[in-house]
Amino acid sequence: MNSSMKYLAQASAAALLSTAAAASANEGMWMPGQTAELGAAMRADGLQIDPAQLSRLDAYPLSAIVSLGGCSASFVSPQGLVATNHHCVLGSIQYNSTESQDYLTNGFLAKSLGEELPAAPGSRIYVIEDMRDVTADMLKGVSDKLNGFARYERLEANRKALIAACEEQPNRRCGVGFYYGGASYYLEQKLEIEDVRLVYAPALGIGNFGGETDNWMWPRHTGDFGFYRAYVAPDGSSRPYARDNVPYRPKSWLRIASEGVQEGDFVMVAGFPGATYRFLTAGEMEFNFAHYEPLQQRLLSNYASQITQATAGNRDAQIGYAPLLQGVENYEKKLAGDLAGVDAIGLNARKATEEKAYRDWVADDPARQARYGAAIRELDAMVAENSQVSLEGLRQGLLDRAQMLSSTRTLYRWAKEHEKPDDDRERGFQDRDRNAIADRLKQLERRYLSDVDRKLFEAALEEYRRLDAKDRDTAFETALEQIGLDRLYGDTKLDDTATRLGWLDKPATAFEASDDPFIRLAVALYPGDIAAERAAKDRVGRTQAARATYMRGLLAYRQAIGRPMYPDANGSLRLTWGKVAGQTRDGQSWTPFTTAGGLLAKHTGKGEFDAPVAAIAAIRAKDYGPYVAPALGTLPVDFISTVDITNGNSGSATLNGRGEFVGLAFDGVLEGVISDWAAPIADRTRSIHVDSRFMLWTMDKIDDAGRLLKEMGVRPASRSGADRNVGK
Amino acid sequence: MNSSMKYLAQASAAALLSTAAAASANEGMWMPGQTAELGAAMRADGLQIDPAQLSRLDAYPLSAIVSLGGCSASFVSPQGLVATNHHCVLGSIQYNSTESQDYLTNGFLAKSLGEELPAAPGSRIYVIEDMRDVTADMLKGVSDKLNGFARYERLEANRKALIAACEEQPNRRCGVGFYYGGASYYLEQKLEIEDVRLVYAPALGIGNFGGETDNWMWPRHTGDFGFYRAYVAPDGSSRPYARDNVPYRPKSWLRIASEGVQEGDFVMVAGFPGATYRFLTAGEMEFNFAHYEPLQQRLLSNYASQITQATAGNRDAQIGYAPLLQGVENYEKKLAGDLAGVDAIGLNARKATEEKAYRDWVADDPARQARYGAAIRELDAMVAENSQVSLEGLRQGLLDRAQMLSSTRTLYRWAKEHEKPDDDRERGFQDRDRNAIADRLKQLERRYLSDVDRKLFEAALEEYRRLDAKDRDTAFETALEQIGLDRLYGDTKLDDTATRLGWLDKPATAFEASDDPFIRLAVALYPGDIAAERAAKDRVGRTQAARATYMRGLLAYRQAIGRPMYPDANGSLRLTWGKVAGQTRDGQSWTPFTTAGGLLAKHTGKGEFDAPVAAIAAIRAKDYGPYVAPALGTLPVDFISTVDITNGNSGSATLNGRGEFVGLAFDGVLEGVISDWAAPIADRTRSIHVDSRFMLWTMDKIDDAGRLLKEMGVRPASRSGADRNVGK
Repeated sequence: MNSSMKYLAQASAAALLSTAAAASANEGMWMPGQTAELGAAMRADGLQIDPAQLSRLDAYPLSAIVSLGGCSASFVSPQGLVATNHHCVLGSIQYNSTESQDYLTNGFLAKSLGEELPAAPGSRIYVIEDMRDVTADMLKGVSDKLNGFARYERLEANRKALIAACEEQPNRRCGVGFYYGGASYYLEQKLEIEDVRLVYAPALGIGNFGGETDNWMWPRHTGDFGFYRAYVAPDGSSRPYARDNVPYRPKSWLRIASEGVQEGDFVMVAGFPGATYRFLTAGEMEFNFAHYEPLQQRLLSNYASQITQATAGNRDAQIGYAPLLQGVENYEKKLAGDLAGVDAIGLNARKATEEKAYRDWVADDPARQARYGAAIRELDAMVAENSQVSLEGLRQGLLDRAQMLSSTRTLYRWAKEHEKPDDDRERGFQDRDRNAIADRLKQLERRYLSDVDRKLFEAALEEYRRLDAKDRDTAFETALEQIGLDRLYGDTKLDDTATRLGWLDKPATAFEASDDPFIRLAVALYPGDIAAERAAKDRVGRTQAARATYMRGLLAYRQAIGRPMYPDANGSLRLTWGKVAGQTRDGQSWTPFTTAGGLLAKHTGKGEFDAPVAAIAAIRAKDYGPYVAPALGTLPVDFISTVDITNGNSGSATLNGRGEFVGLAFDGVLEGVISDWAAPIADRTRSIHVDSRFMLWTMDKIDDAGRLLKEMGVRPASRSGADRNVGK
Repeated sequence: MNSSMKYLAQASAAALLSTAAAASANEGMWMPGQTAELGAAMRADGLQIDPAQLSRLDAYPLSAIVSLGGCSASFVSPQGLVATNHHCVLGSIQYNSTESQDYLTNGFLAKSLGEELPAAPGSRIYVIEDMRDVTADMLKGVSDKLNGFARYERLEANRKALIAACEEQPNRRCGVGFYYGGASYYLEQKLEIEDVRLVYAPALGIGNFGGETDNWMWPRHTGDFGFYRAYVAPDGSSRPYARDNVPYRPKSWLRIASEGVQEGDFVMVAGFPGATYRFLTAGEMEFNFAHYEPLQQRLLSNYASQITQATAGNRDAQIGYAPLLQGVENYEKKLAGDLAGVDAIGLNARKATEEKAYRDWVADDPARQARYGAAIRELDAMVAENSQVSLEGLRQGLLDRAQMLSSTRTLYRWAKEHEKPDDDRERGFQDRDRNAIADRLKQLERRYLSDVDRKLFEAALEEYRRLDAKDRDTAFETALEQIGLDRLYGDTKLDDTATRLGWLDKPATAFEASDDPFIRLAVALYPGDIAAERAAKDRVGRTQAARATYMRGLLAYRQAIGRPMYPDANGSLRLTWGKVAGQTRDGQSWTPFTTAGGLLAKHTGKGEFDAPVAAIAAIRAKDYGPYVAPALGTLPVDFISTVDITNGNSGSATLNGRGEFVGLAFDGVLEGVISDWAAPIADRTRSIHVDSRFMLWTMDKIDDAGRLLKEMGVRPASRSGADRNVGK
């Protein structure tokens, strides 16, 4: 916060905010509605547009921000062109690649609208239309006395009713999210665009330059960007892919900044951070880092070596399991970062101090005691109960590592849920979920090999059997013993995709009569699954009741000490701001930008460091056109900032003080991943962005994407077309 | 090389050298005798003493340099006080620690000579007395025609004869090393000091601060130092521990520099680098990085997870196997660094270019063709043959992961070798090797658990069985099948240390009559081992003949182009020099020093980042006494330099231009480990040293080691003794 002096002159309430904010660096994944409260601080830090504008979902720039479900993105042209990360469109590039057309390696550029390719099945663009407080609706019939399973069920029924009502509007996807641990609920209404097309992605040697080696690292030289386009019916309504669909016309689209950012500049990021855990209790955090994550890390680390061993010497298996392995390794690296970070920032002590202050504040006043005291005690008790169960759950969950078993459990559950009316079905098994399930069942054909699955299942079983007998499923173990692994994998017919998909929508009785060994296992597991689920719902109901009150108390406490609060990330739209800033530590310093010269130095021409020939030639020739950063005297590639983001923010537009596009957030640094659990630390946490100038340079000089640049309002500097190397 | 201009004025031959040297950064692990040739370049870089002095083993400073066998060290007082790395005395600290006296965690300081403790069994200090060219003796009877097994045996006989003659002098340990791939041989004569005592080691939170996390990394804050003392009989002769032994009086001891180094300063390192591979052929390197190291890495990575799994939930097992696991992980990290480095520096292309130049030079001239041409072709053929065998050898070697099997094989081999006169026995099985073998057999009791060994053996067998049948040992497999793993581990009596040691010196017939299952396996393996060994010796003999000629050609070529050459590291005494220098890369820069403030920032009070309370208090109080580096304004901890070192250099004294002690080398950076295979790269390779000022500060301010400081000629600044925290 670089100009708090100026800001302090304004108002006393705001002054309190500023002090608190300054103490916690650029903490905050704020809901759009909170910008009024934060406006003065944002202005003081360099925001030039009216902060009130940032509360409005229907105004620039937020009306240009979209979700891809798991990734963030933004409209950057009036024709529905969507910018996001390369790793967010990766599945669609792979889906369209063949042996003779290796778009993944070489990149893909549609020369015209007609050449734009359908994205991978299940790809969606979600336009946020509304976000409204539905706390009152959600709490209808939910008295303080209603607890456990009954409370869970009531909240679930209210949630489903709200969603069903919202989804009566065609092509809408709606959701109700927990905020502040269930102290508030908001309903999000999104236009679901089903015709998503791949427009452009640079070569893998740009989009994933540095690969796993540079993942979570700075200095970084990855051009992690790609483009989709949203298509709708000619009448403007959303519908699946159809040849005569037309580009969607968004309410707004981001202006590309004519000048990029420089060190110290204000930047903000709007996107959909997935999950943070900053407001769990100190006890929950302590347990997590002492027990849960260490076990999870060990299981994942073993899993990675099991996958490696099970696929050794089999190239097809290695390719098929590569995404799984990469995911496992990536998450294991993240956990390692968490565990290192906990000690490095003294998280437990920090959290204990914070929490003690809150609890003391409650204890200091009989009225507050009366209001929050019992809930705090109840939450502590639930945390103890949940903790134990969560460790068993990690091992029980290992059975789903057998992908075929997991798929079959889904099929049978689908059949069982189908016996009920849609409204009464379990979340994830309603008609609205059918497409997603079918997509997953189909995808298995690319990611499953019977003998690998078997080896991984055997390893999982070994861990599963370390559970106490009471925590294992006797019916399942008996059935498995009768069948044996040879027949399980030898006799099943579910390997065949058509057969597997054919089971979707068959009645439960058909499953129960089947002698397919995987189906027999799934049927055997079902009663135990349902019983465990009911017990879990009871715990969730009790925990939630206590946590909602605990959080209401925390909100009151934070208001009392003048420290504004935001809800933990939950996949909903958030805004965060900070500045472009390097970092200095003893013995080492990071500059805020990397440059083309650094990319050239890392380029080896193979493996993860293999930039396209044309890019290397242009860098050698210093052919940077207008994309040079004046302060650097060369082409910037990536930059780091202090903005507060996490998973799910991938692909988020990075905006300058005027709300103009200056890049895309795509990663953080390993030293900072602990900020999922605590406010970012100024000397550890940094977000990594690809600089818009590197994106434009690649499009202009390397990939001849002039068509798109013009659409985005950028005048290409190069018109030769001589450097085309995309899609070849 | 920062002053080549000045230097170029001197002589044309020297000018050629300077150019070459400048091109390859601070390349070179030079033999002492080479300093005459290099003196001008060293002077130009900042050496202030007479370079000729650096060729003399009996003069300062080389007469103060000693080997610990695997680590390097140096005398730093007239009473035989020896400075080295903490990780080089770690085994002795552990050996002397008990549950109630945890010297490992708390550090150890002897308050007087009488309190100095015997080092771990097998600890030695080797004083280098002589190093002389014995090429002529080694090649006696070795004609160009003598090849294969016969050549190997002849060289081995010559070697043993030289060693035996040398070791007729009491208390001498002698060795003959290959230099330039066998183009030269030198005999090293070392005084073997057997009474080694532990004098002082700081707390683990200084000596290993940062642990595995910071291993191979910069910035670094490890105080990796500790002290031994050499003891001898009152008459000055070496003998094992005896109460009336007295401190050894070395020929010289290093002067502690009164001022530490600063950025840009000349530094040199004298020590015993273990092994480099810079002069292998391009084909050998390519094979190594395409096949050998990847397989090795995969096997090690699996091994690490096997150890983790086999010891899970068993605290004793985890402690016992911790050193093994750490070694495996450390080497796997090193291999990963190698493999990343190969591409990063374009090693294959670079080596191919260099080698082509040499081969073209040979091809250009009929005389050179006649001299070297056949050997080059023969070496290429041998490389192809050796390559295949080496991969099989990796898997065959896995059987030795079963520690009990490996020990039993050693015992039986000892018995078989004992049937021959000592001179004829295999290297490693002569009377001179008996103590080392007995030590290893005894150590097993701390590092072996039957059920863990069994699990690791099972995993190893799985990999072993992937070998083609012809590469496996039928006798062994048949015996193992008859015995079965249950009886193998259940019936053996070798678990008992006394029983195991009792088998040392029993006749081979006793083994052959035994029904101990491990002994039966060892006996079954023996004929295959001997046959394989004979085949290996034949290959070594043929390879060595070709390589010696190849290297003689390379030496001639390098002389012709004016580029002096040093032999690959082989554990013998070497000198290297460079300067104190940070490093700048795109997006990041390293400063050459870390400081006390950075240690404080990393300190978490637990795990690997847990500095002693007294050290943290002194840093908080900025109580640095006279140990502040003027240019930094604070206490330095570690520094990086461009000197060219590798494994085995651990503990090497770092000297300034006057030959005074300014620190200890203890690590490199992961980006630079590839320099085992290629000359160091200026923007990648750095060596890490602990700064003498941090050592002295710790001794003076934290551990109250004034006795030692005075002995080293340093006047302690603190006499309070108030900060004692060592050995409590």
